[in-house]
Amino acid sequence: MRIDVLTLFPEMFEGVFGSSILGKAREKGLVSLNTVNFREYSNNKHNTVDDYPYGGGGGMVLKPEPIFSAVEDLPPSEGKPPRIVLMCPQGETYTQRKAEELSQEDHLIFLCGHYEGYDERIREHLVTDEISIGDYVLTGGEMAAMVIVDSIVRLLPGVLGNEQSAVTDSFSTGLLEYPHYTRPAEFRGWQVPDVLLSGHHANVAEWRRQQSLLRTLRRRPDLLERMELTEKERKWLQQFKDS
Amino acid sequence: MRIDVLTLFPEMFEGVFGSSILGKAREKGLVSLNTVNFREYSNNKHNTVDDYPYGGGGGMVLKPEPIFSAVEDLPPSEGKPPRIVLMCPQGETYTQRKAEELSQEDHLIFLCGHYEGYDERIREHLVTDEISIGDYVLTGGEMAAMVIVDSIVRLLPGVLGNEQSAVTDSFSTGLLEYPHYTRPAEFRGWQVPDVLLSGHHANVAEWRRQQSLLRTLRRRPDLLERMELTEKERKWLQQFKDS
Repeated sequence: MRIDVLTLFPEMFEGVFGSSILGKAREKGLVSLNTVNFREYSNNKHNTVDDYPYGGGGGMVLKPEPIFSAVEDLPPSEGKPPRIVLMCPQGETYTQRKAEELSQEDHLIFLCGHYEGYDERIREHLVTDEISIGDYVLTGGEMAAMVIVDSIVRLLPGVLGNEQSAVTDSFSTGLLEYPHYTRPAEFRGWQVPDVLLSGHHANVAEWRRQQSLLRTLRRRPDLLERMELTEKERKWLQQFKDS
Repeated sequence: MRIDVLTLFPEMFEGVFGSSILGKAREKGLVSLNTVNFREYSNNKHNTVDDYPYGGGGGMVLKPEPIFSAVEDLPPSEGKPPRIVLMCPQGETYTQRKAEELSQEDHLIFLCGHYEGYDERIREHLVTDEISIGDYVLTGGEMAAMVIVDSIVRLLPGVLGNEQSAVTDSFSTGLLEYPHYTRPAEFRGWQVPDVLLSGHHANVAEWRRQQSLLRTLRRRPDLLERMELTEKERKWLQQFKDS
């Protein structure tokens, strides 16, 4: 997969794209991660890429030309045509389903604005997707793009080792994870639950499933509504709903 | 405000904490942003900070000792006691309301795991808040912590200039933003709407409010349900609901 990020702050990406899983995926040639500073495509001597909004009001607006030019100057895509993703608060809320969808593509281009608005013609005539990572305000799209790139690259074949994928796979059950414990068995007087030390696999599995259900009930009942539960699980959970 | 981030990958934060708004806020002394590699608090000769889970299964679990020790070894907080925030998929979903709440604190500590689970005793006896930035899987908590730090720091007094805050303030209306346009008035045959070139302020204001309402209706009807609209606005929107 090839990923190009258009940003005014390419230096923000160096540490993230070079470290840990993303850094290794890049070294192994599983993904190509590039940044382009679209200020280089400014068409004026002051190197500005934004201007005042038509109709007045505060704030600045990113001009269409530099963004269109920067996208069109990228090396041609191999494989499917690129998805061009705009990071913005007005976009669709990002989910794991969208990560899975985008991980099937050959080429992704991310456009990151930075506290300015985007000229509407960029949305209408250039981008294929508008994404928001959540209902909170950021100073720019850069960190949102990092989050999305990370969530996609970890899904590419060969990127995660077995050990790494095991834990996160449990997310795919649709429930929150059960509590984890490791050594020491007692830390400052706080003990690991007996069942986990029992060596009784069936009991461990049942305890974990119940704890997963209980945690989901207490923290994210919205997730539980979409789950198919056994009659036994439903009854077991009912006692906590009543209390 | 003082912010400490406990992570195994401090190098991921350098570009982000040093650039743009965060970098400037730091230079002006409005926020202190520090990273601590909690591997330095490993209590064994192999420098490991994780171990196998009790009860078996795949994945590794972050041990309690290094995390507790790293937090306890931080310089004492001045002002209110610190909020200790765990980045994890099981946490409460982050929102702008939570950003505003955390921006009132004196000292925040973020704990970033990296594809491992956390020993449950960290959750139970150390952290004050567990946060997820959205329903998607990341390789670690680092990017989630960056997102949260960015959303909080931009709310601190003196961090954003007037020009920067103007655009994002419109988010606080509870509606999505109206379309923005800047020069040129015609780009590749695509024109700026006439009303924005008219110089008629009342018409511009009405067009923007309507476009904001319409965009919110089409993209995030959930936000619209919580809004108080005038009778006129309700009627105007009804035509799009019917179609």
